[in-house]
Amino acid sequence: MDDDRRNERYERTHDPSRVLAFSDGVCAIIITLLVIEIHVPALGNGESLRDAMRELRPSLIAFLISFVVVAIAWMGHRDLFAMVRRTDRGLVWLNILYLLPLCLVPFGASLIASFWNDPVALRLYGFLLVAVAVTRFWIWVYATGRPHLLVVPIDPRSRRLGIAVALGPGATYALAVVIAPSSPTASLLIYGGVPVVYFIAITIARSSAPAGAAERDFT
Amino acid sequence: MDDDRRNERYERTHDPSRVLAFSDGVCAIIITLLVIEIHVPALGNGESLRDAMRELRPSLIAFLISFVVVAIAWMGHRDLFAMVRRTDRGLVWLNILYLLPLCLVPFGASLIASFWNDPVALRLYGFLLVAVAVTRFWIWVYATGRPHLLVVPIDPRSRRLGIAVALGPGATYALAVVIAPSSPTASLLIYGGVPVVYFIAITIARSSAPAGAAERDFT
Amino acid sequence: MDDDRRNERYERTHDPSRVLAFSDGVCAIIITLLVIEIHVPALGNGESLRDAMRELRPSLIAFLISFVVVAIAWMGHRDLFAMVRRTDRGLVWLNILYLLPLCLVPFGASLIASFWNDPVALRLYGFLLVAVAVTRFWIWVYATGRPHLLVVPIDPRSRRLGIAVALGPGATYALAVVIAPSSPTASLLIYGGVPVVYFIAITIARSSAPAGAAERDFT
Amino acid sequence: MDDDRRNERYERTHDPSRVLAFSDGVCAIIITLLVIEIHVPALGNGESLRDAMRELRPSLIAFLISFVVVAIAWMGHRDLFAMVRRTDRGLVWLNILYLLPLCLVPFGASLIASFWNDPVALRLYGFLLVAVAVTRFWIWVYATGRPHLLVVPIDPRSRRLGIAVALGPGATYALAVVIAPSSPTASLLIYGGVPVVYFIAITIARSSAPAGAAERDFT
Repeated sequence: MDDDRRNERYERTHDPSRVLAFSDGVCAIIITLLVIEIHVPALGNGESLRDAMRELRPSLIAFLISFVVVAIAWMGHRDLFAMVRRTDRGLVWLNILYLLPLCLVPFGASLIASFWNDPVALRLYGFLLVAVAVTRFWIWVYATGRPHLLVVPIDPRSRRLGIAVALGPGATYALAVVIAPSSPTASLLIYGGVPVVYFIAITIARSSAPAGAAERDFT
Repeated sequence: MDDDRRNERYERTHDPSRVLAFSDGVCAIIITLLVIEIHVPALGNGESLRDAMRELRPSLIAFLISFVVVAIAWMGHRDLFAMVRRTDRGLVWLNILYLLPLCLVPFGASLIASFWNDPVALRLYGFLLVAVAVTRFWIWVYATGRPHLLVVPIDPRSRRLGIAVALGPGATYALAVVIAPSSPTASLLIYGGVPVVYFIAITIARSSAPAGAAERDFT
Repeated sequence: MDDDRRNERYERTHDPSRVLAFSDGVCAIIITLLVIEIHVPALGNGESLRDAMRELRPSLIAFLISFVVVAIAWMGHRDLFAMVRRTDRGLVWLNILYLLPLCLVPFGASLIASFWNDPVALRLYGFLLVAVAVTRFWIWVYATGRPHLLVVPIDPRSRRLGIAVALGPGATYALAVVIAPSSPTASLLIYGGVPVVYFIAITIARSSAPAGAAERDFT
Repeated sequence: MDDDRRNERYERTHDPSRVLAFSDGVCAIIITLLVIEIHVPALGNGESLRDAMRELRPSLIAFLISFVVVAIAWMGHRDLFAMVRRTDRGLVWLNILYLLPLCLVPFGASLIASFWNDPVALRLYGFLLVAVAVTRFWIWVYATGRPHLLVVPIDPRSRRLGIAVALGPGATYALAVVIAPSSPTASLLIYGGVPVVYFIAITIARSSAPAGAAERDFT
């Protein structure tokens, strides 16, 4: 049998391109589906559209927070797979696992849009965000720990930083879940504030990284 | 006329890339649309959100089972097309046929979410899963039986194994359809349990495969 | 200024790849959105799910017909663009125009699902199918008439055949629109039957084509 | 450490391909989701489907205007990124920002479909269109001002023209927002008319451009 062709089959089977196409598709759909949960208001008796729009505020805030969450999840995925040359079975399954809580984000968003101050809604949304962070941590550790899957081996410092930018938000979201019953507003502020801190933390990590370190290209 | 260019047209016409893009898109959308069927509960008189969330359990189970079904269908598609170098007319049409029952899975999922214990709902969902298995069998047999479409010819043992991982789940789902009227719970357990058995079976097949066999790279 | 780089920009600007990605995405979403129009039945007083499922029959037929319509529109797009090496402004706009009636197909499908026997619904659905056929004719004539956009110039016979497989169904759908008020059932039968005739016609065209003719690779 | 491989990682991290795949996906989904907002009419007492269809006219107009808005936004994105060889962090984030108002267009469309003559609805829709124009201006200025991101540096004249085709429509939409309370119809006419003027303006810009100027390839 032809060794070159077997080799070609091996590379094709481990080629990440369809994993990327599928993940890009899923993220693009989630981020676009979020808008479906913003319902055109039905006007009550004598109510003007301007009044009704005010009631949409929770929906819009849930939309915005979720939009940024999904965008960051996609960017983190892109940052990781920019370093990945080959996939293996574990990585394909972990990738599906990473997409699972993300796919539930539109439901979580419409839940907090409807039950703005209800700790149960806020906790469930927080659980989803924790799950996104944990699966991001898992897939990062899995891929960066297997040099044969990578374009170039990652240095330990950059690897730890990648863990930190996954688990840091995850721990903060977990805190928000814990405090949701006593102070729902604080919990919501955390959901809105973590992406801002995340953005600043990456900015600092990039500028303080040594030349050639992977985190210089974190998004 | 230019032979090189005609050749280029031939290769472009038989190039699988758009079939993959289309199939990745369809699978990504199905897996993301599943969440639309989980409706934010409307609270009854004096009902708390916590109580209402309990009624969502059927929706969540239907979501999870369907999520895994679609993920496995996509992985099987990826495993097959990693070996496919060229498409032909039959393969393009069979690919559409493979996507047909998958596209109906969100409807089946919302049906069992609403009619949890109703054998009619469970049977219809089971029929869809049987149809996914049968079309997977068909497209596998079609493509692997045409060496000019493949990167490298597949050995008979690997080919039979590919048939087994399509028809095995199919037969089990058919059993679930048959027993649905007498024991709906058993039927549902089968829908949830088959992916687990599937995962284990592939793990065993991979580790017991001779070097270079196609099933070493099954996902 | 660097001529090579300008050349690269020229080729990138005329590269069809994003037009294909966008069109694959749109077709994949339309074909998957069709399922949203099949609503889980709400059971009436004393009604069983089995009875209620019977009322779903119009929805399922509308789903199936529309599924095949979109699949064929995608295949026709793929057949055409397999011959296209470069796009230009006209082709990009015509491509958007081709997607416009397709994007309305899910609405047309849910209209005939709800108003099964109403000529108004059947006519509107037919108008959409005529529009798909006319825009397919237009984009085919535009692209095949511009040899600098093609991988290899198309022979006049194949070009005429491509026109026939667009306008033939179009004319038949127009007939269905005309007869809808007097015989809605015949009109519906035409919507369901045209894809079958289309499939057979392409099969004949392929087998009777001279070696190297473009229609040998029509899907 | 291997310099070639580090270089490969650098290029992969700055490769625009996933940004394009994600953006194509988002635009394709938005343009297809618009149809969901056209609801199958529920017939009132003694009302015929023909009468009910008349009430759909606002929905169809909102659909058509939004369809063209999204199509033009996608074409402008394609025109820009045809010149972009590499992305950087700023460009990836600006791209997300560009998609944000676009993702809200389906909501805006269903708002003006329901509240046809209400200045509040017309203003909100106009705000979205202004936001699309402003983010388009921003991403254009950002990318074209960084020659290391481009295939070939852009000449100042073409760059100014790119700014004009973003800000021109933006200013006109802003005018429509201002006049909405006094003359809602004029405001709506502007939303429908801007794409026509845009198309003509690009046609003139292309034909009067010097050889090799970027605007010769504007879509």
